[in-house]
Order: sequence, then C-alpha cells, then structure tokens
Amino acid sequence: MRLSRYFLPILRETPKEAEIVSHRLMLRAGMIRQEAAGIYAFLPLGLRVVNKITAIIREEQNRSGAIELLMPTIQSADLWRESGRYDDYGKEMLRIKDRQEREMLYGPTNEEMVTEIFRSYVRSYKDLPLNLYHIQWKFRDEIRPRFGLMRGREFLMKDAYSFDVDQAGARHSYNKMFVAYLRTFARLGLTAIPMVADTGPIGGDLSHEFIILASTGESEVFCHRDYLGMAPPEADTNFDDAAGLQDIVDKWTSLYAATSEKHDAAAFGALPDDMRVSARGIEVGHIFYFGTKYSLPMNAVVAGPDGTLKPVHGGSYGIGPTRVAAAAIEAGHDEAGIIWPEAIAPFKIGLINLKPGDSAVDAACNSLYARFQGRGVDVLLDDTDERPGGKFAKMDLIGLPWQIIVGPKGLADGKVEVKNRRSGDRQLMSPDDALALLG
Amino acid sequence: MRLSRYFLPILRETPKEAEIVSHRLMLRAGMIRQEAAGIYAFLPLGLRVVNKITAIIREEQNRSGAIELLMPTIQSADLWRESGRYDDYGKEMLRIKDRQEREMLYGPTNEEMVTEIFRSYVRSYKDLPLNLYHIQWKFRDEIRPRFGLMRGREFLMKDAYSFDVDQAGARHSYNKMFVAYLRTFARLGLTAIPMVADTGPIGGDLSHEFIILASTGESEVFCHRDYLGMAPPEADTNFDDAAGLQDIVDKWTSLYAATSEKHDAAAFGALPDDMRVSARGIEVGHIFYFGTKYSLPMNAVVAGPDGTLKPVHGGSYGIGPTRVAAAAIEAGHDEAGIIWPEAIAPFKIGLINLKPGDSAVDAACNSLYARFQGRGVDVLLDDTDERPGGKFAKMDLIGLPWQIIVGPKGLADGKVEVKNRRSGDRQLMSPDDALALLG
Repeated sequence: MRLSRYFLPILRETPKEAEIVSHRLMLRAGMIRQEAAGIYAFLPLGLRVVNKITAIIREEQNRSGAIELLMPTIQSADLWRESGRYDDYGKEMLRIKDRQEREMLYGPTNEEMVTEIFRSYVRSYKDLPLNLYHIQWKFRDEIRPRFGLMRGREFLMKDAYSFDVDQAGARHSYNKMFVAYLRTFARLGLTAIPMVADTGPIGGDLSHEFIILASTGESEVFCHRDYLGMAPPEADTNFDDAAGLQDIVDKWTSLYAATSEKHDAAAFGALPDDMRVSARGIEVGHIFYFGTKYSLPMNAVVAGPDGTLKPVHGGSYGIGPTRVAAAAIEAGHDEAGIIWPEAIAPFKIGLINLKPGDSAVDAACNSLYARFQGRGVDVLLDDTDERPGGKFAKMDLIGLPWQIIVGPKGLADGKVEVKNRRSGDRQLMSPDDALALLG
Repeated sequence: MRLSRYFLPILRETPKEAEIVSHRLMLRAGMIRQEAAGIYAFLPLGLRVVNKITAIIREEQNRSGAIELLMPTIQSADLWRESGRYDDYGKEMLRIKDRQEREMLYGPTNEEMVTEIFRSYVRSYKDLPLNLYHIQWKFRDEIRPRFGLMRGREFLMKDAYSFDVDQAGARHSYNKMFVAYLRTFARLGLTAIPMVADTGPIGGDLSHEFIILASTGESEVFCHRDYLGMAPPEADTNFDDAAGLQDIVDKWTSLYAATSEKHDAAAFGALPDDMRVSARGIEVGHIFYFGTKYSLPMNAVVAGPDGTLKPVHGGSYGIGPTRVAAAAIEAGHDEAGIIWPEAIAPFKIGLINLKPGDSAVDAACNSLYARFQGRGVDVLLDDTDERPGGKFAKMDLIGLPWQIIVGPKGLADGKVEVKNRRSGDRQLMSPDDALALLG
C-alpha cells in the first residue's frame, strides 16, 4: 500500500479520554475511531490487524476440527426464554423491539441459538462430536464502557460450541479447544497462560482463562516461570488422539498458575524463589464446560446406541479478536508507539522514501515495493512529502516490525537502512539483501 | 472437507414457507436456517459461498483504489439527526434505546457515519479522492420479510463511499466503481447489466443498478442483446485514467438497457428484432452520486487550492453479498438443485466414495483428496455410508461444479467418473487425469 493513497489519520496529540496505553496508541495510530460510547469504527490500519488475528484463530479452529458457520447478530427473545436467561441476563443485554413489537436482542453470546440449530438437525450420537464456531459481532451494554477495545460494547468474538454424547466426549472436545488456544496465542505472538477459572454450579475442573502477560495488564497473576518458555503443541498434533491431547493439557495445567481470585499464596510460596513469577495479565480467552445446562431446558437430545434420548453435553470457547488487538499493544509498546508481533502487524515492512521526487530514490523504492509485493509481503510505502522526522515518528508509532529507509545518500553507496522496530537495531545493506532478509 | 466430519444438514422435504427457488434450495441444501423473520444463520455451506463472494468483491474494490475499513453496526441517533434522516427513515430503521436511554439504531446504511469519519480527519483537497468501503451487517426492518435472503432484515452489504472535491472528480470516482462492479459480477460468474436508475432530486445521469438476468427474477428488464456477450474490463485497467474509464462506461451505457420502471417501449422497439432481449432480472448492486447531500448538512468540507472551504461531493456504491448468493441460485439451478458458478461454489469438487470400507476405493479417494488439497482445490469428500443414490442426489442438490465418483467397478479398470454438474457430461478417466483436469 502506498501511504499517499491510504487512509491513515495519525493524531498528533494524545486523546485525553484514553486511560490506557492500547487505547491511546490505537487512537493516535489511526486504527480506531469512537463512534459512540464503547462503539468503535476500525479504520483501515486497525481492520488489517483484526483480520490477521481472525485468520489465525480460524486456521487453528479448523485444524482442531471445529466447523465455521455464522449466526446473526439479532436474536429472538423467545430463544432466551427457553434457557431462562432472558430475565437473568440483566441490563448488559441490549433489548430491542422491532416494528411488530416483537422482543428481540443483540446477541451477547450464542449458546441458545447454536443449541436451537443443533436440536433442529442432529438426532443421533453418530453425528457427534460436533463443534460449531463463528466469528461475529456481539453487544454487551456495559454500564461504563472504557479502556477502548478492552471493554467495549460492540466487539468481535470467536465463540465455539461443542456437543458431545457424554462427559468423557465433552472432555475430549474441551481439550481440543485447550490445545487450539495454546497454538492460536503462540502464533499470534503472545505469551498466554491457561489459568483455572470458576466453573460455578457446574463444578469440575473444565474451565480455563487464557491470560496474556503484559506490564500494563488489568489484573495480577501468579505462575511458575517454566510457563514462559513452554513450546506450544505442534501443528501436526493429532486432535483425534484423546489420550495424547490429555497429556498436553496435563502438562500445561500441572504447574502453578492463578489469577488473583484463585491465588493460593501458600502453594505459590512453595515454589523455588527463582520460579515464582508475579505479573500483570489480560484475559484474552475463556473455555468452559457447562454440561447439560442448555440442552436440558432446550431439549437438545440425541439417540444413544440403545435408542434412548439423552441431552448433549456442551462447552463454549471464546476469544475476542478486537480485545486481542488491544492486549497485544499492552504487551508490546514503548515510548515511541506500538511494537507488533510480526504475525498480526498490519504490514510487515514500512518502506520509507526519504526524498520523493529524487528519481533514484523513487526507483529504488518502487522496485523494492514491487518485489516485496510479488513475494506476498505486506509493505506500506511512505511516498508522501512529509519531512523525514515525521516519517520516522509515524513508522515507530504504528509499530511495523521492520523499516527500510531509502535516501539519496545511502543509495549513492548502493545501500538502504533496515531497522528492526523491536530491538532498534539498524543495518546498512543492499536492496537485494534487504529483499533476501525480509522477502 | 470430509462429509463425515462436516455439518451439512440436508432437508428431504421442501420447506413450505419458501416461495422462491433460491430460498427453497438454500434451506434444502443446508446453507441457511431462519432464526427469526428475515434473519438467517449461515450454516457452513452457506457461509463458504458468502465468503467466496465477499473475497471477490474485496479484491475488485481494492483494485479500483477503494480502501477497506469497518464501521460498527450500532449507530447513534444523533448522527442521523445531523443529516435529517433520523425522522425521514421511517419504520425500516431498527431503533434502539440503550441502558442509559440513549437513542441508537442498527445501521441500515452508513452515509452519515462515514461522513463523520471523513470530516474528523480530512482537511485538504490534496487528500482526495478518497473511497472508503466496508463489508458489514445491516438491518432493515422490512414490514414483510420474505423470499429468504432476497429480502431479509439482517443482511450483509458492501457499501463504499467516495469523496471528491468537485463533480468532475466525483464522476471519475463513480466510473471507478462502475468498472469495478462490471469486473466483480463477471468474476462472480454472473451476467450483470448496468441499467439507468433514479437520481431523485440530485438529477444527472450518475445512478445505475446492476441487474442479473435470471429466469425467476423479481422484475422485468429490457436490453440490447450485445450486453450478453460483452467482455468485462481487463484486470489491468488503469483506474487513474479518467478518460479511459469514461470510454468503458460510455460503451456499457450506450446500448439500450432498462428496468420496467424506466422502460421506453419506442426506443426498445426501434432495435432490430433479433437484438431485443426481454427477460427477468434481479438487482444485485446500485451505484449512486449524491453530490453534497450529506456534506452540506454535516459540514464535511475541504480546503481547495485557494484555501476556501468547500463541501465534498459524494457517492455511495452497494452490493449485497448475501443477496448475490441467492441471485446466483435464481440464475443457476435445475430440477435437481443448485448449479454454482465455479468462482463462488462452496467447494469446486464433490468426491464421492461409493463404497467406504473397500480398501482400494478408500485409498483412491484419500489419495485424490490429499492431492487436490495440496493444490489448494476445495474438495468435499463424501465418505459417509449413505447409499449411492442418496449421495448423487445430495451432490446434485448442493451444486458443486464437478463430481468425481469412485467405485470398485471403475477402479478395477483404473478409472473414476468425472461429472460436470452444469452440462451433465460424464467421462471415465484415470485418477491422474482427473487431477490434471481439475487440479
């Protein structure tokens, strides 16, 4: 993309309403714009990040065997009356009356609807296991929306729902998502640690939050240091191998890890001194087994091998891609701006033309731009007539992993400068070498 | 995708509520499920089609220079008061009060919001032209939603909005979209003809509907036969060449083409007998220049070269991907089911294993499946134990362009059967030849 033809409205001043760094930087970097309290438009740069996040989530959901569909945003109140949640949900549910005075709502989650879909079509245990997911906008009418995308009202959510004939099957489905989430966050370039979460009246041990460590995180967390170096499960993990998946889950849940609500100071204190990590964290995912909570009241049953009808066992599994975008900034930034993990950076490379109009510089930039594009590498070419200082500041602010700086002086020696945003390292090299390094 | 692990709930009976063929076939083929009046869930097969359609739309929007962002679904009523449309819009607008009693609405379109974004950031004629688009859910509270996706309440829309400093610039922006739409529909495998549409109080000639010809279309249309064979503009069309684009638009608007509302029987009658086509059509896109209709009341101005502030000239450009999916079925089906254009088919190939459990047949299917996958070809492998007749009927119903039928008898001669869904042609060939033909 050529910046001269792009829409990247950078703000010079830090917006006063933004209380946390991700919100400030997303506003300043022209990624989002608030349209109403807790409701944001994703400007082109912000949308690119969200799309990269959802693409990785989708690949890992598919790899685990989950199947994508897409449920609507507007739901009928009657569906929620079946589960009993229409009255329970409270004011966070955005309730709507349509022109016929029918009671509708903007879905805050989809357990009821997906259960309705399931029961409409599935009759036999032979059709299980089944895991259906979608990536769709949700609305939760927070009383005090704040912190930008961290606690918005309209937000994107990947929510998956598993259906199994019994609890053993449901545990296998749960473990599939557990492993998929480990892979997902690792691929997103984030250190996420599964921590035990409340199961409420369901009981059992099948509820985990995935917490990203970030110095500016919203809550305090405690974990064993080994988590920080643990390699995620491989891409060729066999998701049908229930025992193999259980081994992975056991490994990832055997060490101490807890949010402050679940913290056991004695157990944590028993760890060796150098193994104790206490840090700030941000919840970016939650997986949960809820048994027959929805299938019983909504009569979602399948015939077992002996012909008797049984309510299915369910779980739900959520990641908020728009929240992940903000969390990645909380985990990756410095004084100058955002530092994206390469996997979710809006562009991999910022190519800076220091002297547009200089034919040699223009030619070198155009050539590099075309050659990177030809290799499928996302490049943002700053071909504007802004002064160099402004261009450098802008590239640092938007946080692309690499900058290639092309000016007349370097080019006279056949060199461009390649800068790594995270380390700040700079190297002079030929355009061909830059292409070989980053192409 | 292996059918045994997919979620493809085929209906045996034709749903009574479905009045038109696309609605019937989408329900029967397990593509959509109605969740409330005019509100549908896209089941996995339906979602694949919508995603293929949006991918093509997106590519062609980007090619023309339009820039993608993503605006939220929920909007503030205040924004619509600025343009005066909050009161004008009537009951089709889904009006909502949030928990703070603020008046909100589910966006039926985005002229106001995109104008708000524009005026917040853009100050100078130097930043123009600008065309911002998004692909987002819309809601229009139709009094009588019907015909499935053809007239739903919650539907997907690609809406683009152009901003120019004057009318000449706006015409160029309009022509970019005109050409992008020609390319888009051609790539979607649809014959779409631009027809003059109302401009209302704006006047002028800058409003066109794009109409797909379909025997079961909603309205009567009339056009010159040459439209049916006209080649769309090439991929390397220079969108910056205003004169070149105007030539293309002139060519595509010089022949007779009109909906029944705009029909001029005398002009149509003056065509040679064999050039007169009267047919049924479905509107799938609409492009429209509206001048300063929103920029004036909303004060969206830029400084011209002389420093004076001028309201920008705008246009809006819509395609409904979910409607296109239905229209493609109206244009492509037979007694047995859907006949997809290859570009938007949910899978290119249906691979039918006639005898699961037969090791030679299984091996041949698995090998073909893996080799097609390796080449990036979407294949649906029917590895279920349904009887052959049911498998054939299902593949015909869901309308994949190609079927490869693998059974023990053919394999004994080293052959599989390749069937073209549209023509019905069948050929016996080796698996390698099938791979070469379709891989």
